[in-house]
Amino acid sequence: MIDLFVIKVGGNVLDNAPLLQQFLQNIATIPGKKILIHGGGKIATRIGDQLGIVSNYINGRRITDAATIDLVTMVYGGLVNKQLVAQLQALGCNAIGMTGADANIIPARKRPVKEIDYGFVGDITTKDLHVQPLQAMLDAGLTPVFAPLTHDGKGQMLNTNADTIAASLAIALSAFYKVRLIYCFEKKGVLRDASDDEAVIHLINRTIYQDLLENKILTDGILPKLENAFSAIESGVTEVLIGHADDVLRNTTREVAGTLIC
Amino acid sequence: MIDLFVIKVGGNVLDNAPLLQQFLQNIATIPGKKILIHGGGKIATRIGDQLGIVSNYINGRRITDAATIDLVTMVYGGLVNKQLVAQLQALGCNAIGMTGADANIIPARKRPVKEIDYGFVGDITTKDLHVQPLQAMLDAGLTPVFAPLTHDGKGQMLNTNADTIAASLAIALSAFYKVRLIYCFEKKGVLRDASDDEAVIHLINRTIYQDLLENKILTDGILPKLENAFSAIESGVTEVLIGHADDVLRNTTREVAGTLIC
Repeated sequence: MIDLFVIKVGGNVLDNAPLLQQFLQNIATIPGKKILIHGGGKIATRIGDQLGIVSNYINGRRITDAATIDLVTMVYGGLVNKQLVAQLQALGCNAIGMTGADANIIPARKRPVKEIDYGFVGDITTKDLHVQPLQAMLDAGLTPVFAPLTHDGKGQMLNTNADTIAASLAIALSAFYKVRLIYCFEKKGVLRDASDDEAVIHLINRTIYQDLLENKILTDGILPKLENAFSAIESGVTEVLIGHADDVLRNTTREVAGTLIC
Repeated sequence: MIDLFVIKVGGNVLDNAPLLQQFLQNIATIPGKKILIHGGGKIATRIGDQLGIVSNYINGRRITDAATIDLVTMVYGGLVNKQLVAQLQALGCNAIGMTGADANIIPARKRPVKEIDYGFVGDITTKDLHVQPLQAMLDAGLTPVFAPLTHDGKGQMLNTNADTIAASLAIALSAFYKVRLIYCFEKKGVLRDASDDEAVIHLINRTIYQDLLENKILTDGILPKLENAFSAIESGVTEVLIGHADDVLRNTTREVAGTLIC
């Protein structure tokens, strides 16, 4: 029996007001303990454009310079996070907005400069997380809502991938709870046929995964997600669910929507 | 014996990097339970200017329109709040950033429109505060750091004066702690002679206050602060300390710096 849901929602949901409203309603109706981790969405780019902050990319990876870390601290940690908190409160969900700096829950290390200087990006190590304050919040009936930000312990905020934060929190908390880690994305789940959005594979375990790989049924894009899912499971997470924000949260105890990896 | 310090720090300290650093070091060295409430500072105006958000004033009061509430949610709730949290963490103080929406600690009511529509400004009622999550944080050794933001319970963030939030939190928590409410401002305390920055009156009680009023020793500017201080004391706060951010926190058990009102 799952007793903690760790749910990551991406920018494509945040940017779609009706879908976001449905998603937040689904979150609010999940009984029991849950943690939400949100990405950024287009609003940071839009506000950055207005402020004259240019997004720099090297090899397709965004570089977080000094202006950009302030921008995402403002937009993700302030605007997006607090609007989600206020909207969840309106739905009766007692949300509390967080970053990894708050209560020192997610200390990080600024990514070392090798070929590329990624700037103010934080790499995290699951064993360094301090989840005790989170357990106290969950026990008190609160729903922590994380912006994808961490800190270096020396006064500097850092940018950290929301998928990574979700996986690390899920793994760290799996010592205390049976955790379902849920990734909400734009597809209904892992598809047996990339051209058919309804061809969802509802259950994947290691054996099925090997079969799917051998028969070359999976697209390249989904492979990293599945590798990350199996990695989380091998580190203690009970199961990982991948699916669409609209329906993947509706059934939290049965696997009728999305792809369940276990 | 004081067992909770509720400390409000204004924008003039936030805008002064060396003074802010000294102030945060002082905060970090206060033994025991403490809560920080911060104002905004000039950065919201600067970023607002860059975003083309015009500050509107009516009778000297700032109007919080839709663009402005998003701006202050971003800047106060995100940038300023998280930078303070990260800096306190670097000083060994286990800070946790908050707004009144988080854990529904400070529900507010959008100010009714009478002669003036103040926009998204939240009025608060001390008895409506939910301080239980704060007590749990304080008991766990955390230092809550509040941005001057609340919410209406219907999904909307609201702008609330930081002095008011500090006084309301101090009063609500005085049911459980002996509270010293500290206002850090640009003077060393209440002055016996407005032209002499060193002429600090170190202790004011109701009797002394009446004497000062009758002898017209106080300037008009300080009267609302003193009225608010006595109002907080009459509502349960043990004492109020007014003084400069540089020294008012250095002595937390004796009244050698600033003006103590009791």
